[in-house]
Amino acid sequence: MPSHPAYDDLYGRFARLAHLGDALAILDWDTQTMMPEGGAAARAAQVATLRAMAHELLTDRAIKGLLDTAENETLDDWQRANLREMRRDWVHAASLSSRLVEAHSRACSAAEQVWRTARPAADFAAVSGPLDELLRLTREIAAIKGQALGVAPYDALLDQYEPGARAADIDALFADLAGFLPGFLAEVTARQPAPVAPPAGPFPIERQRALGLKMMEAMGFDFHCGRLDTSRHPFSSGTPDDARITTRYDEADFMRSLMGVLHETGHALYELGLPKKWRGQPAGRARSTGMHESQSLIMEMQACRSRGFVAHLAPIAAAAFGRAGESGWDGETLWNAMMRVRPSLIRVDADEVTYPVHVILRYRIEKALVNGEMEVADLPRAWNAGMVELLGLAPPDDRQGCLQDIHWYGGGFGYFPGYTLGAMTAAQLFDAARRADPGLETAIARGDFAPLRNWLRIHVHGLGSRYSFDEILRRATGRSLDAAVFKGHLRRRYLS
Amino acid sequence: MPSHPAYDDLYGRFARLAHLGDALAILDWDTQTMMPEGGAAARAAQVATLRAMAHELLTDRAIKGLLDTAENETLDDWQRANLREMRRDWVHAASLSSRLVEAHSRACSAAEQVWRTARPAADFAAVSGPLDELLRLTREIAAIKGQALGVAPYDALLDQYEPGARAADIDALFADLAGFLPGFLAEVTARQPAPVAPPAGPFPIERQRALGLKMMEAMGFDFHCGRLDTSRHPFSSGTPDDARITTRYDEADFMRSLMGVLHETGHALYELGLPKKWRGQPAGRARSTGMHESQSLIMEMQACRSRGFVAHLAPIAAAAFGRAGESGWDGETLWNAMMRVRPSLIRVDADEVTYPVHVILRYRIEKALVNGEMEVADLPRAWNAGMVELLGLAPPDDRQGCLQDIHWYGGGFGYFPGYTLGAMTAAQLFDAARRADPGLETAIARGDFAPLRNWLRIHVHGLGSRYSFDEILRRATGRSLDAAVFKGHLRRRYLS
Repeated sequence: MPSHPAYDDLYGRFARLAHLGDALAILDWDTQTMMPEGGAAARAAQVATLRAMAHELLTDRAIKGLLDTAENETLDDWQRANLREMRRDWVHAASLSSRLVEAHSRACSAAEQVWRTARPAADFAAVSGPLDELLRLTREIAAIKGQALGVAPYDALLDQYEPGARAADIDALFADLAGFLPGFLAEVTARQPAPVAPPAGPFPIERQRALGLKMMEAMGFDFHCGRLDTSRHPFSSGTPDDARITTRYDEADFMRSLMGVLHETGHALYELGLPKKWRGQPAGRARSTGMHESQSLIMEMQACRSRGFVAHLAPIAAAAFGRAGESGWDGETLWNAMMRVRPSLIRVDADEVTYPVHVILRYRIEKALVNGEMEVADLPRAWNAGMVELLGLAPPDDRQGCLQDIHWYGGGFGYFPGYTLGAMTAAQLFDAARRADPGLETAIARGDFAPLRNWLRIHVHGLGSRYSFDEILRRATGRSLDAAVFKGHLRRRYLS
Repeated sequence: MPSHPAYDDLYGRFARLAHLGDALAILDWDTQTMMPEGGAAARAAQVATLRAMAHELLTDRAIKGLLDTAENETLDDWQRANLREMRRDWVHAASLSSRLVEAHSRACSAAEQVWRTARPAADFAAVSGPLDELLRLTREIAAIKGQALGVAPYDALLDQYEPGARAADIDALFADLAGFLPGFLAEVTARQPAPVAPPAGPFPIERQRALGLKMMEAMGFDFHCGRLDTSRHPFSSGTPDDARITTRYDEADFMRSLMGVLHETGHALYELGLPKKWRGQPAGRARSTGMHESQSLIMEMQACRSRGFVAHLAPIAAAAFGRAGESGWDGETLWNAMMRVRPSLIRVDADEVTYPVHVILRYRIEKALVNGEMEVADLPRAWNAGMVELLGLAPPDDRQGCLQDIHWYGGGFGYFPGYTLGAMTAAQLFDAARRADPGLETAIARGDFAPLRNWLRIHVHGLGSRYSFDEILRRATGRSLDAAVFKGHLRRRYLS
């Protein structure tokens, strides 16, 4: 066994960092699911202290030397990948002064807090000052990180969520989609049948929960290592040995909660499938935001919204609510209701076809903001113009326009592209999986997710961050991300 | 405002420590209530890392100088108390080498793990080796801390839970009780009426929970700042802004779960009533284990087992289970069932009269073990002899003898006395409160806890660790802890 003391030293430090990160994940889960309101201020202090201690560990002055020394030690491929990811973490953390980190953190809190009241009041003017300050600091951070990483400023922000992603590549992918979607959308809306009302509620919450648990089990969620709870917004959190997902319930609409469960289960399966040997190390983590989203969407959009699976689901759902035999509970009715395409102003309510349009608009705007080609004052006008151009809809106010998403107001510039990269990646992975295993779709139509899950374990989950996003995709599907597969999927699903 | 830079520096460091401690409290709560089994190993790593980081903060080489400098700064009374408590924390942490802390921590884990299987198997021999090693390290720690604190070794262990307590004082109090209890017990058991069966179940868990929540509300538990959950063993945890208590449910016996809720609510009210100005500082913490136990017992034993309150509770409980008007649901029947005194082998099943006997036995044994007057090999014999002497019962095996409690096997030497100090303190505080407010007992008999709670806020909760245990008690009741009050309470309750 070759000796690699610098690497081993780093290994211990990053293990400690992971323990802090895991503790923070559980605290965050607790904040959103369990914590009584009165605990909020104390919780914020706990989180701030744990984050500060993690930042101190990661920017310890010994790290740079250890990273440099470890580069010359004899390491195997996984260790080398681990070292690469360690360096990435370190560059992102250490390139910023603690003054800038703190100022940015304060600006995020300030903008987000104002946004919480500005959004319901549709009062963009109220939040434009705090957002302006936040953007100024974001530009400063982008410039510094860009320098440190040797990439353009916006790419440096992107790199926080999508390591290695470049705006030039996304530009090409999104231009392809932006050229395709408007015409496709017109065709779909022209051809789709008149809407049929789905079965009416009320659907008791306990029964919705039981149905969700049953579906999670079918998908292979291991309850020995995870939980399902309720929160205001569905999310996936926890750790790879303790994956916690949530949903919310609406007594009038069980499909929404159920689809939330299926989506978050996809996220959880990724976490639960990460390589056990690399727990607590950067190489053992999920690859990126976009890859994570691909795993939720491959379950929700590719597998569970397939015609075959919906036909399988329909009688199970009818039985779950004691409605077996009633009209409207057949697979075709449910599927038609689920496949309804209709342009809307709000991203989170968007269907599979129009969702990318919302993302493309946000991507264009945030890139322009970060690059100094647009100012905060121009945001509402640019947003509304983009909505008219891309979806033919004019937001009546900023609540239904540029105030709808929390991301920018919380400092999340560079995050949005991941949603659509995820949708495209999901289509491409699913396409490869069903080519590799011709029985995979029939299995899903029987409620058997094992073939898909096993394929993903091998080609995505078990690889952690061993390879880059592009390399994972090329190894799994034979090519880099290609909009053609996603477009093909949409055509097949909505026009055939 | 006088300037006190060293004190201010310490203030920031101890705030950070408190954030870590609060995070650990929530993680511990999660481990016992929410965590899926598969998360255990990762959770242990999270907790170990957070504890190690807290230890590093507390033993930072700058602390000693800061403490010494701050002694000469101009501080007000609260600040001075805070500084005193900081130094206490520091002495306990810094007197031990990290080698010893780690060896002790490993020995605790090892002994506790073996105990978990040795107890059900009644196999003391299996655990005597690990306990021997743990005792060896405990003696080493006691000697070192005793030196650092200038007290006897056992007193140094006691000081971890009961700052300032000395075995000499406890010896006197417990000798008083040990002289009184056997004769009193004989008198009570001779005079008590034949047992009457309490109302039979099943008592649905949801209704038990609803009744528990109703009683918590009556006692003044603020659900804006706390929760009630379920766990294997009832406990109270969380933080002063987020007090979390648990109970367990038995469908055959609602009183056990309910009494657990009332007991833990007493603990939570102490936490919720701690001085807000001193959040996150040592002076703002609860005073000691014994004082904490006094707050649970003043609610459970003094207030809620009073004849008046039980008469108030009976019809509420009957209604909660849809049993109003059935026989056996009157206050007298319930009260007689609750007041039943009967010597038993197991501490956690003991009644109010025999409980102190269990504690006195453990106190005598652990003191002898720590002082080197007894060895682990002698433990079963000493235990069984003590049970015969004090309660007239001979344990048939070690499962019902010296293996029953987790404390020693988890390293908790010096903890046991707090249970009975708490019971005595509860009696003395309650006695003072009802003398101060003659309407207090009638209020409780109406389900109105406000007078008691308000008195405790002023005389105990709001003081945090501003004063010593003895000083809090003298200010509140006019005298130091005195077994006479507890004996008087028992006489009044069981012989009048």
